[in-house]
Amino acid sequence: MIYADNSATTKMSEAAIQAMITQMKDNWGNPSSLYAHGQRAKNALEQARHEIAAAIGADAQEILFTSGGSESDNQAILSAAESGRNNGKKHIISSCFEHHAVLHTLEKLKQEGFAVDLLDVHENGILLPEEINAAIRPDTCLVTIMYANNEIGTIQPIREIGAVCRVRNVVFHTDAVQAVGHIPVNVVDDNIDMLSASAHKFHGPKGVGFLYAKKNIPLLSLIEGGQQEYGKRAGTENVPGIVSMAEALKESIQTMPENNEHLCKMRNRLIEGLRQIPHSILNGDAVHRLPGNVNFCFKGVEGESLLYLLDQKGIQASSGSACAAGSLDPSHVLLAIGRDYESAMGALRLSIGEELTEAQADYLIQSVKEVTAELRKFSPVWREQVSGRKGSYLRESIWQGSL
Amino acid sequence: MIYADNSATTKMSEAAIQAMITQMKDNWGNPSSLYAHGQRAKNALEQARHEIAAAIGADAQEILFTSGGSESDNQAILSAAESGRNNGKKHIISSCFEHHAVLHTLEKLKQEGFAVDLLDVHENGILLPEEINAAIRPDTCLVTIMYANNEIGTIQPIREIGAVCRVRNVVFHTDAVQAVGHIPVNVVDDNIDMLSASAHKFHGPKGVGFLYAKKNIPLLSLIEGGQQEYGKRAGTENVPGIVSMAEALKESIQTMPENNEHLCKMRNRLIEGLRQIPHSILNGDAVHRLPGNVNFCFKGVEGESLLYLLDQKGIQASSGSACAAGSLDPSHVLLAIGRDYESAMGALRLSIGEELTEAQADYLIQSVKEVTAELRKFSPVWREQVSGRKGSYLRESIWQGSL
Repeated sequence: MIYADNSATTKMSEAAIQAMITQMKDNWGNPSSLYAHGQRAKNALEQARHEIAAAIGADAQEILFTSGGSESDNQAILSAAESGRNNGKKHIISSCFEHHAVLHTLEKLKQEGFAVDLLDVHENGILLPEEINAAIRPDTCLVTIMYANNEIGTIQPIREIGAVCRVRNVVFHTDAVQAVGHIPVNVVDDNIDMLSASAHKFHGPKGVGFLYAKKNIPLLSLIEGGQQEYGKRAGTENVPGIVSMAEALKESIQTMPENNEHLCKMRNRLIEGLRQIPHSILNGDAVHRLPGNVNFCFKGVEGESLLYLLDQKGIQASSGSACAAGSLDPSHVLLAIGRDYESAMGALRLSIGEELTEAQADYLIQSVKEVTAELRKFSPVWREQVSGRKGSYLRESIWQGSL
Repeated sequence: MIYADNSATTKMSEAAIQAMITQMKDNWGNPSSLYAHGQRAKNALEQARHEIAAAIGADAQEILFTSGGSESDNQAILSAAESGRNNGKKHIISSCFEHHAVLHTLEKLKQEGFAVDLLDVHENGILLPEEINAAIRPDTCLVTIMYANNEIGTIQPIREIGAVCRVRNVVFHTDAVQAVGHIPVNVVDDNIDMLSASAHKFHGPKGVGFLYAKKNIPLLSLIEGGQQEYGKRAGTENVPGIVSMAEALKESIQTMPENNEHLCKMRNRLIEGLRQIPHSILNGDAVHRLPGNVNFCFKGVEGESLLYLLDQKGIQASSGSACAAGSLDPSHVLLAIGRDYESAMGALRLSIGEELTEAQADYLIQSVKEVTAELRKFSPVWREQVSGRKGSYLRESIWQGSL
């Protein structure tokens, strides 16, 4: 089995699993309790907060623990919007290829009377800081741009965008769910006011994440109740999950230089190999992208069928984000960088892990070559027979075993 | 060590820990992924949903997984309020001794123009269904009453309150965080429209809970993003936590009859023993209370000092809810049932577990007797010296080791 879907979720590291087990078994007190057993849990919680803060260059009190990246995104954006509303500033800038946790939150704000500008991205999947600068208005209360894209892996010029926002005095949030633990992120150097991250994307547990918010940024509470997390996030703290997340993040950062050297080599090998497939298009910038991300469109190939046949060969990959998997619509990210409908339906995202060997990379290339060739045999029939049926004929044939 | 704070959090059961480990190690795929590894995670998620639904008499599609009880409470109340707002109904009924996850959410709604009636509870900590009936107005959109109180353990006549709400056509939500896994709960028999629960209160993991919402009840999404949980709760599902929660709940329900027989015996023994302490008052009804809950006020004793000295004797207990621990204010629950300020500051909650032996119960009684006697020696001084200082003198003396 070759797991090439690390952008969807990652296998927990041994250290993260062990941390979880230790906390579940031996340190299960409620950190709000005053007796020693509770205070031990509290200490573990605060140590994790320090470690996570240190990992991104923040102060401990700037880290708020949440249930994951989506919650962090929601809280960050709604908080900045609320401050904006209170100051008569109801304009928000984002991009059209953000994660749905950002886009759907912005959609909600639009319904509440906010003006939201979703900037276009260039064909290479990168936004320019000067485009942000040009879009800022006197009533702009928030710029939210993702650090690295979850589908095509492109890394934005976050530091420069942050610098623009500082000069223009606008709050800057970044969804860094795909970046934290994968590439160096430093909230001070990168001029970031708010940042979202999720543990299960860097070999930590599911159901836990964090929100960084710079000291002067007021936060709105999404979940009301007890006074946990400075009164900004109620509910008994998930200490085992949080300690496990800190462990995973420390390890990811420690192994990052070595891992990324290897990942970049494998990524480039995959890109070179897959480029040889006729009518293939690399999605996203070849250089400014996550070390482990490869994303291609193959014309005349239907993405879901591709995934199914690769799974048969022991390869786990995706056509886009897992959060949108199962949807019949093409990826909004691929449409945003200018792919047409048909190409966007034939996308393959490989998000490889550091364990991938050269031999496995070659097997991956070979498998994709074979499968795309196989699927294209049916492609003319498919185009003729199912025009307007969104590719369901081919998909159904395959699921029913007739291919 | 005697852990008598199970209302704050519980030790995870071996079965729940094992389920968590198995999922973390072997079934870590993203349930939204289409390949077999992802679908295995999806299957585990849906099996857990069925098991949890079965445990409370619901259908699987009525169970929504959340990060815990507070999130469930928030989502339930905000959802019913939103429906009410859309129908011109902006009146909500609750009680003044609910959990803060309920009270603070209602406070927020009040600021948005809702009328909120917090009904008084009787001295025994019970509300009467006819009082709910009398409070319902034509514009009432929600009744939210907790199943069992988190401090004094009193169990409300939920079935009868639910019946009233059905007749009057008002949505009925119950915060059942202290009830689920501890006493029989059946959403059909109990006429419940929405119910909140939290895994770590019944020997499951922290950071996971669920919200039951009857089929016809529209839900608002607190966390926007991907289409997980029927589009009502975005974010990659915490499959290990959810499967572990299901395991814990199944086990709790299986062992409930036997456990509760023992717990009631130990609880009654503790109540009888502690009643002999002069100027002690049992808080909450002696019969209609959780099998493991004991709650007393001891006049002339300061709660925090009591806890500290009990901790020295290896006993972990609390003065009220863990969520409000560390606060200098007296418990709103104790004030609600008519305790005066001084009595409320001298509260002790023992929430015992099924492992408590008779000998440990007797040690508990003896310890509380000794500690209250010791503290009362200082009580006249305390009253004289610190009137208006909220008991800080005694507390500070103890923390500084001068007692």
